[in-house]
Amino acid sequence: MKNTFGNSLSVTLFGESHGEAIGCVIDGISPGTEIDKGFIASQMEKRKGVNALSTARRERDEVKILSGVFEGRATGTPICLMIENADTKSKDYSKSKDLARPSHADYTAECKYGGFQDYRGGGHFSGRLTAPLVAAGAIALKALESKGIKIATHISRCGDIEDREFVAYEEDFALLEKLDMPVLCEKKREEISALIEECKKDGDSIGGVLSTAVIGVPAGVGEPWFDTVESMLSHALFSVPAVKGVEFGSGFAFGKMKGSEANDSFYCDAGTVRTKTNNNGGINGGITNGMPVTFRCAVKPTPSIYKKQETVNFKDMTDETILIEGRHDPAIIHRARVVIDSVTALALCDLLIGHFGTDYFKP
Amino acid sequence: MKNTFGNSLSVTLFGESHGEAIGCVIDGISPGTEIDKGFIASQMEKRKGVNALSTARRERDEVKILSGVFEGRATGTPICLMIENADTKSKDYSKSKDLARPSHADYTAECKYGGFQDYRGGGHFSGRLTAPLVAAGAIALKALESKGIKIATHISRCGDIEDREFVAYEEDFALLEKLDMPVLCEKKREEISALIEECKKDGDSIGGVLSTAVIGVPAGVGEPWFDTVESMLSHALFSVPAVKGVEFGSGFAFGKMKGSEANDSFYCDAGTVRTKTNNNGGINGGITNGMPVTFRCAVKPTPSIYKKQETVNFKDMTDETILIEGRHDPAIIHRARVVIDSVTALALCDLLIGHFGTDYFKP
Amino acid sequence: MKNTFGNSLSVTLFGESHGEAIGCVIDGISPGTEIDKGFIASQMEKRKGVNALSTARRERDEVKILSGVFEGRATGTPICLMIENADTKSKDYSKSKDLARPSHADYTAECKYGGFQDYRGGGHFSGRLTAPLVAAGAIALKALESKGIKIATHISRCGDIEDREFVAYEEDFALLEKLDMPVLCEKKREEISALIEECKKDGDSIGGVLSTAVIGVPAGVGEPWFDTVESMLSHALFSVPAVKGVEFGSGFAFGKMKGSEANDSFYCDAGTVRTKTNNNGGINGGITNGMPVTFRCAVKPTPSIYKKQETVNFKDMTDETILIEGRHDPAIIHRARVVIDSVTALALCDLLIGHFGTDYFKP
Amino acid sequence: MKNTFGNSLSVTLFGESHGEAIGCVIDGISPGTEIDKGFIASQMEKRKGVNALSTARRERDEVKILSGVFEGRATGTPICLMIENADTKSKDYSKSKDLARPSHADYTAECKYGGFQDYRGGGHFSGRLTAPLVAAGAIALKALESKGIKIATHISRCGDIEDREFVAYEEDFALLEKLDMPVLCEKKREEISALIEECKKDGDSIGGVLSTAVIGVPAGVGEPWFDTVESMLSHALFSVPAVKGVEFGSGFAFGKMKGSEANDSFYCDAGTVRTKTNNNGGINGGITNGMPVTFRCAVKPTPSIYKKQETVNFKDMTDETILIEGRHDPAIIHRARVVIDSVTALALCDLLIGHFGTDYFKP
Repeated sequence: MKNTFGNSLSVTLFGESHGEAIGCVIDGISPGTEIDKGFIASQMEKRKGVNALSTARRERDEVKILSGVFEGRATGTPICLMIENADTKSKDYSKSKDLARPSHADYTAECKYGGFQDYRGGGHFSGRLTAPLVAAGAIALKALESKGIKIATHISRCGDIEDREFVAYEEDFALLEKLDMPVLCEKKREEISALIEECKKDGDSIGGVLSTAVIGVPAGVGEPWFDTVESMLSHALFSVPAVKGVEFGSGFAFGKMKGSEANDSFYCDAGTVRTKTNNNGGINGGITNGMPVTFRCAVKPTPSIYKKQETVNFKDMTDETILIEGRHDPAIIHRARVVIDSVTALALCDLLIGHFGTDYFKP
Repeated sequence: MKNTFGNSLSVTLFGESHGEAIGCVIDGISPGTEIDKGFIASQMEKRKGVNALSTARRERDEVKILSGVFEGRATGTPICLMIENADTKSKDYSKSKDLARPSHADYTAECKYGGFQDYRGGGHFSGRLTAPLVAAGAIALKALESKGIKIATHISRCGDIEDREFVAYEEDFALLEKLDMPVLCEKKREEISALIEECKKDGDSIGGVLSTAVIGVPAGVGEPWFDTVESMLSHALFSVPAVKGVEFGSGFAFGKMKGSEANDSFYCDAGTVRTKTNNNGGINGGITNGMPVTFRCAVKPTPSIYKKQETVNFKDMTDETILIEGRHDPAIIHRARVVIDSVTALALCDLLIGHFGTDYFKP
Repeated sequence: MKNTFGNSLSVTLFGESHGEAIGCVIDGISPGTEIDKGFIASQMEKRKGVNALSTARRERDEVKILSGVFEGRATGTPICLMIENADTKSKDYSKSKDLARPSHADYTAECKYGGFQDYRGGGHFSGRLTAPLVAAGAIALKALESKGIKIATHISRCGDIEDREFVAYEEDFALLEKLDMPVLCEKKREEISALIEECKKDGDSIGGVLSTAVIGVPAGVGEPWFDTVESMLSHALFSVPAVKGVEFGSGFAFGKMKGSEANDSFYCDAGTVRTKTNNNGGINGGITNGMPVTFRCAVKPTPSIYKKQETVNFKDMTDETILIEGRHDPAIIHRARVVIDSVTALALCDLLIGHFGTDYFKP
Repeated sequence: MKNTFGNSLSVTLFGESHGEAIGCVIDGISPGTEIDKGFIASQMEKRKGVNALSTARRERDEVKILSGVFEGRATGTPICLMIENADTKSKDYSKSKDLARPSHADYTAECKYGGFQDYRGGGHFSGRLTAPLVAAGAIALKALESKGIKIATHISRCGDIEDREFVAYEEDFALLEKLDMPVLCEKKREEISALIEECKKDGDSIGGVLSTAVIGVPAGVGEPWFDTVESMLSHALFSVPAVKGVEFGSGFAFGKMKGSEANDSFYCDAGTVRTKTNNNGGINGGITNGMPVTFRCAVKPTPSIYKKQETVNFKDMTDETILIEGRHDPAIIHRARVVIDSVTALALCDLLIGHFGTDYFKP
């Protein structure tokens, strides 16, 4: 439903990069769910990324809770989270408003909104809108944690550098918690940081792949058709700007595999059914099987680069060149991971509350 | 919404592999939309795939239109499509109902439905349920065609064999129309057929990757957040059984790219804005830009193989081995392409009717 | 969502009066819910009404369950119910297709569907479409009964004749169960029957008011805004053709009341909170309070009467007169009660499953 | 969907009486729709009602537009409207938090939210939440006006005093525009004011009935089943606190009518189809017929009265008496009319945008 995601737990996003405020409304979280303002703030910090490698725009990003929380807990009614925009250098944008920045949404916004869009700093399309998503996600992540469900994401690829995969989930998750640059292998972490730094110097940007695992999800959640776990998660994940690919379990590697290699054998483990491999990423027939839910997201390079690019003026319909000014990130992959965790948490809460009822997270 | 997809055009799927009938209800197609029974039938045929390489279950798959069509055209009210099940060897399944076939949904169905699921032949999870999707998709494809929008899918990978990419869309689309084994390059077509044949002999199966293009989509359709074109399409695509990955444009290859390589430059072409490359797959900021919408789907190997596999009896909670009997496909990739086209068409119709109103396809 | 109602339990309706079949798809009923075919059949009979007073169209109305039921119980996947149309005298309708029958939907159908509607016998607008609603409702009613929730409806007014209100719910409900003409007071029952009979003789029709009570609904269900119990029930009730008014508790009588008369005092009754009066019809702030949910529906007289009426030919845009032929009811109020019970049951199941989760009715 | 209403145009409501702020998010209004801050402010004033007869709580109710509006027009992206709470005497409420005020939602909130609700001043249930609805409605009303669609509401009954019905819509609408006490007949206006004044002196309250007309709605909007115009409007109307009955056209009076009296004859009027009477309130078969859409809402007396009432302490489960302190209205009927107009406008915009597409109101 347009700027709303979810059925049983819904999130409605609002705001523009240079408007009064950005924010979201979360509706359906169980009454009594603890709201940890400190955790929200720490997630907001994580989203900002490593100083040296991230955007020069420095917002305080203080999350104001306007409703739905009373005495530190969710009331069960809609929670509105608001972040005021402070550092909005609006004058930068007016002169180039009819120039389509390549791979940005300027041209498509013009097509959709017919000239009425707020063009300043990407308007409603700005990556800045992920801030309220992260705030909402922080609430969902804490709720999931209260049920033993945890989510973590690392950079599995950046350029030609590949990180190792998850080995021991709990340990790896704890490690990632501490890192600004979420790469499991220390050596690769430095290499990736160096690569991004190099792109920055070159006025260029770089893409990557994020790898996510969710542990503790109960078996039996999801729907066989349309609202499969993969459908619901990908729906949420593909609304994160820059995500252009999502694969579950072995994903595209299935294209090379035989059934005899790909199938995950079941076995009994102390009264629980488990699989020996997890090529299906914890999902069979659209429904969780109790194994870790695993997926990877392809993240494209930040489209804003400090290089002259060919484009059009879509009002005059003329070919032009553009040199984008202002602040931008050489990579967003290290910042995007917290957004991925957030939308994953929100989508999972929606599925769980839909399945178990509105009081699922009630203490 | 569970077994329903879409807002402005919705599809609700019903049926089990060995029940009375399978089918779907399509609600919201513009009144006056032509309903071409011959085309529906030909799509049903295409879904069955190449005889030699496909399942031994031979259903007539005659699509009965129960409602919503009058004098050859959509009335604008819900269309119910029904396919009666005839060839249902139910006795095959009862004895093994508590054995979880690896990578199938038997175990997750048990977790979700608590023993009440129809376990015969995969029940509601059966790939057979794609038949009504294809029938519904045929209506959507014809509606899109009336607006100059066309969709085609080829196998871009099967095992280690890779097909060439689309070059001239119209020509390639026409070629694919005629093929049972949808591979653009003739030589690769034979290789892939041979590979699947070999897997069949070996009692094994093989996965692949499908590559889809949609041409003629107007610019300006989709939403910036949550209901992005990628979100809506992936939501539909991931409900196709066996699809485990979806990437748009350059997708996972973005992970290795720099912004200067990845960005699609705009230019003016006879009064139309176009891009020189199409790494973004025709979508910027979640909204179509008028270029072809392109994506790839990873399809896992058919889980049913003629080899002994390790598994559990989930009622007794014991480790067991299973040798799956009955009919199954050594690959579904060549059959899945028509399902991919169908759900893509349905999702696009939903977006277009949502944007342009209920009479969009009215003659 | 157009022809679909409900979020957690949804019903999608399809069919036309003179098409192949009519039916619906119910998605979301808890796995294991007992499906009582005998009860479905008996509800279908009740919907047909008293022979002497009802339509001459005599359909067998055999409900075929196409999916979602296995070994007598709901599987948890979509249930498709289908009723084939047999007795469809289509030739009656073609000649008068551009004449708008007063208070029927012929003209509005033309406006909405632009000439593509199936005009035969009212098409998709036909009261015949309530048959699948009643079949679906029978499943919902039985599910509710398993939780101690019961629904019954009587005629509280027909013309100037008023029935007494509910006194002892259980007894009154048992009485209504047995009646074809659902009037609590025996004398009034005869008077109402006589009035309808008289209208029939006169070629006219008569309206009425239905009064419904639901007992056993747990307290705490519903939402404060938008999805209030009143909103959800009225949404369902106003989709029943001929219903033109819905009031809860004291309803329109509140317009004459003072707060001191209208307020329902609370008291403790053996550990349960109850109210002394029930002017609010069991709902405070959109949420159930544990008291019986009570409401009344205004039902307009059947628009088909055997009298010459003034109208237009909407194709030629000329004033015309019309004398409607064919079979019609002098009143539908006695038949509508089972439809009211049905949609009420479906709406309540939706609210309850949304609140308590998908397994609410699981045995 | 819980605290969200609408499909194509949606409104999500948030806030509590004594929280930081109240507000709503409107998503889907056509890009370019004029946003008239002056009109929003004047509607907010109208909602406050006649000074002498309304609540002593005096909020400035300044509506802040946080997003979705740029250079005085809707951008097409979500509009967040926020009203800060200033005058919140929170100390009044803590001591009586477990006492259920009769006919209020205190007890049902406890049942639903299990003690986590914000109990201060009714929390999320407070009539104060209608303020953002009115602000959102002001945007919708102006959008409708740009298409020649107008809405007005008068008090048709208060106690035993009845106002005359609409005669000349345009004139009557203009008159109502100017009135704080929206009664068409001057004499009745004074009588109703006196009656409310009297109730105030007596520490009591009074209910009433509101009568609404919408003119200029195009024919052909609405759905035959479930999303009938009556269903959509009543869904919205019954979420307005205190509304306990909704009837369209002749409504409950149909219960006494014969078909020959009730049917609205069609005739041609200068190329337009019209009806001689309008007993169906402009709606046939759930779809608009081009005549004025008319309905009435029953509004119960304000439950807060200055009289000792019997109730329970739902924590201790003891019978108690309560004497409600603080500020309350002797009637809300004169204030509610602007809320009725607002939700009607929002529901109609949803139907129209769904039918005609997202650019329906684009200039």
